[in-house]
Amino acid sequence: MTRFSLDTLRAFSEAVFRHYGVPKADAAQAADVLAAADRRGIDSHGVARLITYADMLDAGRINPKPDIQVVRETQSTATVDGDNGLGLVVGPAANRIALDKAEAVGTGAVSVRNTNHFGIAGYYVLEALERDCIGMAMTNSTKLVAPLWGAERMLGTNPIAMAFPGQDEPPVVIDMATSTVAYGKVEIAKREGTPMPHGWAIDAEGQPTTDPDAMMDGGAQLPLGSTYEQGGHKGYCLATMVDVLTSVMSGANWGPFAPPFALQQAQPERQVGTGIGHFFNAWRIDGFMDPDRFKARIDDWVHTFRATEPAPGTDGPLIPGDPEREAARIRAEQGAPLLAPVVADLRTISERTGVSLT
Amino acid sequence: MTRFSLDTLRAFSEAVFRHYGVPKADAAQAADVLAAADRRGIDSHGVARLITYADMLDAGRINPKPDIQVVRETQSTATVDGDNGLGLVVGPAANRIALDKAEAVGTGAVSVRNTNHFGIAGYYVLEALERDCIGMAMTNSTKLVAPLWGAERMLGTNPIAMAFPGQDEPPVVIDMATSTVAYGKVEIAKREGTPMPHGWAIDAEGQPTTDPDAMMDGGAQLPLGSTYEQGGHKGYCLATMVDVLTSVMSGANWGPFAPPFALQQAQPERQVGTGIGHFFNAWRIDGFMDPDRFKARIDDWVHTFRATEPAPGTDGPLIPGDPEREAARIRAEQGAPLLAPVVADLRTISERTGVSLT
Repeated sequence: MTRFSLDTLRAFSEAVFRHYGVPKADAAQAADVLAAADRRGIDSHGVARLITYADMLDAGRINPKPDIQVVRETQSTATVDGDNGLGLVVGPAANRIALDKAEAVGTGAVSVRNTNHFGIAGYYVLEALERDCIGMAMTNSTKLVAPLWGAERMLGTNPIAMAFPGQDEPPVVIDMATSTVAYGKVEIAKREGTPMPHGWAIDAEGQPTTDPDAMMDGGAQLPLGSTYEQGGHKGYCLATMVDVLTSVMSGANWGPFAPPFALQQAQPERQVGTGIGHFFNAWRIDGFMDPDRFKARIDDWVHTFRATEPAPGTDGPLIPGDPEREAARIRAEQGAPLLAPVVADLRTISERTGVSLT
Repeated sequence: MTRFSLDTLRAFSEAVFRHYGVPKADAAQAADVLAAADRRGIDSHGVARLITYADMLDAGRINPKPDIQVVRETQSTATVDGDNGLGLVVGPAANRIALDKAEAVGTGAVSVRNTNHFGIAGYYVLEALERDCIGMAMTNSTKLVAPLWGAERMLGTNPIAMAFPGQDEPPVVIDMATSTVAYGKVEIAKREGTPMPHGWAIDAEGQPTTDPDAMMDGGAQLPLGSTYEQGGHKGYCLATMVDVLTSVMSGANWGPFAPPFALQQAQPERQVGTGIGHFFNAWRIDGFMDPDRFKARIDDWVHTFRATEPAPGTDGPLIPGDPEREAARIRAEQGAPLLAPVVADLRTISERTGVSLT
């Protein structure tokens, strides 16, 4: 592990995006989204992904200067075409449209097509808090997850995020894949050579497996709930909600046809739209309740849930967002710890682009 | 099991509501929501609950003639006070406000306080389809579910529903509790004297249990995902989303303070608002895409997912809503099968009210 300051990583990402022709403001925006992941401890979505963004920009697979367009709208809705730009740029732009509409009429909902990987979903709902809105953010992604009773990958890990502001308490921040676990946890099991818990994955024949290689080699992850008895159909339903709102509704590629976020992976056999899809919804808090009263009620909620009787052998329930806040507290002082392969990737990018990593 | 025609059950419910002073149109509305559950095979939420509604009306715990008021609004949002009416009446009224706002400006979002049990969440999203909207419906409910790492009941089974219309295919209909299973499944295990699967519940000490009595006797259900390894924090996050949107935001009783839907159960020790809460959101499809194109894309999605390679020993994935549609097909011909205790309850209501059950 090597520690890098968050500012160093952010500046490096920004310069790399600039190198590949991304305009200055967009490069800063994209670097800000990656830095949020590194700050909040979601290492799979931060600078560790920079090499993939760089590869795809380098290969012309992502448009560095997209002309992001609203292609259809009402007072509170819009469909946005991201012109195959970085999701790290298209996502924030579309989210701002949702927030602008919420400011104007109470709510805003934006479905986005022709876009790419947008970083952590949590970024967008934290942006909404800055404007006294409750945000909801979703994205589809390349297929990894089997529907319950399926033997093949049909859906992405399709995350959902939502955040609620407190008054004196920090916000309640929810950001969750709709699969049992994020793909990064399968990668960790592989790296560490340990079996996965039951319920995470099936192999290429559709049989349950605890072997990360068996999942990776033509197998699939399972939806939240895993089995019928444990509610695996519900995880499948949640992934379906995300797939439809982000991609069926925007004109993006849905389900198994979402393009991969990687140069090496094969493109899907069919195109049913353009790029992947996102969905942003913003609800203005004062459209429902005085925001100060709402925030005081959230504080009360947080205090009440912190006082829950702990289960044996635990310290009791966390408040959604606690782990990421704790990571952010530590990393603000100590920087982000990067694994050796991630540092090696950054060195590779540095050599390719001439951007120094200091 | 005794079979009753759906029309008989609906007429009986309506007459019983009328007996307790519910105005004619409201009684018909309430009976329609219950009948939808009986038609769709969600037996725990249909006429089986009529005795509880009747008990609560009889005891003056539910207001038969509520003055349902919009207490705050913008063009696309509203907070509704249900005046302690039947949720089966307040819910449909609030959902219509959300749909009216969506028709006017593209989306509508309504948070509801001072209301009661609203039947199946799926009812509301099916109503949205009638107006070419995608609906989302949620409600909180009396505490039954422990947050991950908690040893006590803090949240309801807090369902989420959403539906998407097809063109030639029937709609995709999602209606799911955010607990591992609905409470009705614990009741079934108790009735049949069989252990529950692992992951459904904890006992009064917070230890995992498969004994339905141990859950019922001071234990708790677990959120979708059950354990940390399987994503139980995600089910807790989903229940939190529902709790906040329905109840923190409307001014209802949230979390452990939601009043029970039963005369016998003790009232919570604290009131943090009025009644329970619902949340309805409607997105007009043509705010994003031509509805015919959207529906054709849903048909394509359905065909694609039906063609998923089946997992060994299964017939392959279902489309969300399949089981309820199959129940509705059978029950339209054969009526709804009611268990002996439910029939006994209906006879009791009939004797009390003088409404004949024929």
